[in-house]
Amino acid sequence: MLGLMQNQPMLISSLIDYAERHHGDGEIVSRRVEGDIHRYTWADVAKRSRQVANALDGMQLKQGSRVATVAWNGYRHLELYFGVSGSGRVLHTLNPRLHPDQVVWIANHAEDEVVCFETSFLALIQAVHARCTTVKQWVLMCDADKLPADTGIPGLISYEAWVGKEANTYTWPVFDENTASSMCYTSGTTGHPKAALYSHRSTILHAYAAALPDVMCISARDSILPVVPMFHVNAWGIPYSAALTGCKLVFPGPALDGKSVYELMETEGVTYSAGVPTVWQMLLGHMKANNLKFSTLKRTVIGGSACPPAMITAFNDDYGVEVLHAWGMTELSPLGTLCTLKNKHLGLPEAEKMKIRLKQGRGIYGIDMKIVGDDGNALPHDGKAYGDLMVKGPWVVRDYYKGESSPLINGWFPTGDVATIDADGFMQITDRSKDVIKSGGEWISSIDIENIAMAHPAVQMAACIGMRHPKWDERPIVAVVKKPGAEVTRDELIAFYEGKTAKWQVPDDVVFVDAIPLGATGKMLKTRLREVLKDYVLPGV
Amino acid sequence: MLGLMQNQPMLISSLIDYAERHHGDGEIVSRRVEGDIHRYTWADVAKRSRQVANALDGMQLKQGSRVATVAWNGYRHLELYFGVSGSGRVLHTLNPRLHPDQVVWIANHAEDEVVCFETSFLALIQAVHARCTTVKQWVLMCDADKLPADTGIPGLISYEAWVGKEANTYTWPVFDENTASSMCYTSGTTGHPKAALYSHRSTILHAYAAALPDVMCISARDSILPVVPMFHVNAWGIPYSAALTGCKLVFPGPALDGKSVYELMETEGVTYSAGVPTVWQMLLGHMKANNLKFSTLKRTVIGGSACPPAMITAFNDDYGVEVLHAWGMTELSPLGTLCTLKNKHLGLPEAEKMKIRLKQGRGIYGIDMKIVGDDGNALPHDGKAYGDLMVKGPWVVRDYYKGESSPLINGWFPTGDVATIDADGFMQITDRSKDVIKSGGEWISSIDIENIAMAHPAVQMAACIGMRHPKWDERPIVAVVKKPGAEVTRDELIAFYEGKTAKWQVPDDVVFVDAIPLGATGKMLKTRLREVLKDYVLPGV
Repeated sequence: MLGLMQNQPMLISSLIDYAERHHGDGEIVSRRVEGDIHRYTWADVAKRSRQVANALDGMQLKQGSRVATVAWNGYRHLELYFGVSGSGRVLHTLNPRLHPDQVVWIANHAEDEVVCFETSFLALIQAVHARCTTVKQWVLMCDADKLPADTGIPGLISYEAWVGKEANTYTWPVFDENTASSMCYTSGTTGHPKAALYSHRSTILHAYAAALPDVMCISARDSILPVVPMFHVNAWGIPYSAALTGCKLVFPGPALDGKSVYELMETEGVTYSAGVPTVWQMLLGHMKANNLKFSTLKRTVIGGSACPPAMITAFNDDYGVEVLHAWGMTELSPLGTLCTLKNKHLGLPEAEKMKIRLKQGRGIYGIDMKIVGDDGNALPHDGKAYGDLMVKGPWVVRDYYKGESSPLINGWFPTGDVATIDADGFMQITDRSKDVIKSGGEWISSIDIENIAMAHPAVQMAACIGMRHPKWDERPIVAVVKKPGAEVTRDELIAFYEGKTAKWQVPDDVVFVDAIPLGATGKMLKTRLREVLKDYVLPGV
Repeated sequence: MLGLMQNQPMLISSLIDYAERHHGDGEIVSRRVEGDIHRYTWADVAKRSRQVANALDGMQLKQGSRVATVAWNGYRHLELYFGVSGSGRVLHTLNPRLHPDQVVWIANHAEDEVVCFETSFLALIQAVHARCTTVKQWVLMCDADKLPADTGIPGLISYEAWVGKEANTYTWPVFDENTASSMCYTSGTTGHPKAALYSHRSTILHAYAAALPDVMCISARDSILPVVPMFHVNAWGIPYSAALTGCKLVFPGPALDGKSVYELMETEGVTYSAGVPTVWQMLLGHMKANNLKFSTLKRTVIGGSACPPAMITAFNDDYGVEVLHAWGMTELSPLGTLCTLKNKHLGLPEAEKMKIRLKQGRGIYGIDMKIVGDDGNALPHDGKAYGDLMVKGPWVVRDYYKGESSPLINGWFPTGDVATIDADGFMQITDRSKDVIKSGGEWISSIDIENIAMAHPAVQMAACIGMRHPKWDERPIVAVVKKPGAEVTRDELIAFYEGKTAKWQVPDDVVFVDAIPLGATGKMLKTRLREVLKDYVLPGV
């Protein structure tokens, strides 16, 4: 027997309709590429997103066609979020930090038909446009009178000229909620990038879940500055949850230095922010150097990579700002877990609370999580056992765009992370699956080994990798970059591990290197390190 | 083009699975009919809801079959919420306050096959069971050794004997998310009751929305006491949102007097409650008489009927508790609006905030609202224009169970309320559609007229109704019950309206009556009042 409720599809257009009707005068403040501050309201976003939809209709762009953006966090980008997806096209947010060859490969793979880009990326687009074979229209996100002459990009039009002539009335089409709404490519360290193709349904469910009190806790009383980029996994879904709740949005544009972010937070009464640790490091550095305090900031979500404990302490103790650890992936829209405390934790001593805050947090309702061993069997949720983290849920990918085979294993998506889950549901990443060292049937966390080396005063950076071993399968070694002018020997460093980890987990060797290869997002490229060390032989082998 | 996300149906079973895994040790505290306090955890709810499912499977009860409850807010009722719906049957929460004849009519109309009832309602069930023709199994919600002998109810079994023998392992079935999950009959004032038939999809979406910061703001740090009954529109969805968030639940059972509720709030660290004004009146009365304060209560949601301003002030000023006005209906699962302030309101003077708090609040994302005039055209959202309130959304009914025709008008559900909506989206009920007086093409709010009469010191109760008028179509009169020993004349009362409302809105007459007929839920039955006054003639007609 079916229920007798209204069967209304969950569509992104309903978010912007709702925003216009319920918080039409809510503010959107953007720092532009030009450096000035732009202000308008949710009602303006709604009107201009309908102009975007009319512009796309005017081009006779088919439903499902890809419209790419190469853009900062800003108001025009927000209009494209709603205008492109709302009208039935697919918003493809392109990461401008990628190598030009990768940008070309991705634009062609996505078959982008329109590309909207900011003036910061004009040189990039000039370098790649001729090789992007499917693009029919290049749009520079600037005022009509700011369009440079002779860019060499055929048919280039300014965003304002492109949408400015369009009517701001539009009837959003109604379609299946499983229709594709947007896409984002992962910055894979091996092989070609792969794209997650989100749907309206997955986006709306994620928007509800992301705003929950135990997740990002977004309300109409918040002023939110998303540092996390809209060109990467939809700024953790904040644009959608913002429309759903009516919070004020404050966009930093390209200015992510400590001074710019701090000023915007203070002038716009920001209560809440979200970003990766590197940006917060710059902000805290600026504040310390200038002896500044926050007037309104209450909470910040930190994800993308594990947050150093010192940063959590600095925010909490020095500035009274609560830090919420988060974990997500492109394949998860992106939020998987958020670390908010439970009732029973509130009375714990600070040190105990800190142990919990260092974990990545509890799975959001909608996300199922499990950890499995080498045999694929689920491991206990006791906070000790660790295994490959597997997830499933309505905002988790089933397939990659144009993927030849599904990444799922019995319906579960393998995250590539190794983690523990405790009895309270708090998950903690211990390693990447490909980095964990499997020695004699036991797993050794490369991150644990690196953290011990990093604690030595002479070590600037450390990378632990497993080397083939005839008896133990793999044994760990640690590649170390010394601090300028500092000295430490191999034996001193090996001795430094004593008492800090189990004897069998101590690395077999230390290799001193000048630098450890890093990827575009600052992550260590261990595959490249392996190539560098391809002639290395373990001692005694 | 379809998105490539996992297509997992939204099912109620996933809520209890999630609760067990993520907050298995979270507490559920219930005051039982016996008067004692019962404590257990979400893990226990999960286990026992699987026992319920096994018991229903054991009876070979088909998918979609109705299992009714006649029960207070308590732990066994919670197990039935998850066990019945999770296993694919339909939970029918029956209102024990109805007349026995109505209970019979409803049970037969729903074709209930199992009825689980509490010992408080044994006499009711003894009176009706023989006429409930579809029921195969009566279950008394008590321990096995508490089952009375000779109840006269054939095959009566205790709940503990019924589920106690079952295994606590069970694989929840997976099915279409539009499958019926539960049903609730409205207590209509005319004609037979009508039932909303909820689906798993509507219930899960409502559970996400109800927990949002701008709605009920439910988190794992809350301890929630729902006074609003689980036998009526699912206690505003709190059982589902609680499983989704992991808050502690505190159930008052039948003891809704001020002393019992206060004690439970204090001993269980309740942070949050929800109920109708009458219960809060008892609580505040008890607290005032005994000079008590709340230690932990922070917020309370008040709905069901408009909250008197004095109550909002008392909670806020005397006890530091924030009152959130809410509006909902059985047909809306039930939440439609909640009154939480926006950023821009926070700096307003208290009197201005109060004006907003008196409104029913903003539509929750998922609910579309509009007000229409007699011609069916939408009226402006300016806080002044008022018209029939229409809603639509994925947790709004499309049809009534066994309904002959859809209640919808062009896809919108007519709520039967008359309301204003302001530019910020805040809705305020001004009347019931059937009670509003239509005089010379203008509408007069019967509630406004009643409130003025009620402000007169000699008036205990007032009901305003429209009388047919040859020239104006309708003109208002007010029926008044005087306070014991108090005196007031017709002319004095008419004069009392001077300066308090527009001249043309002043009632044409005052009729003194001994009592105003009230329905089962305490609402005035104006239809009955009309019958009483059927020979009444307006002055000058």
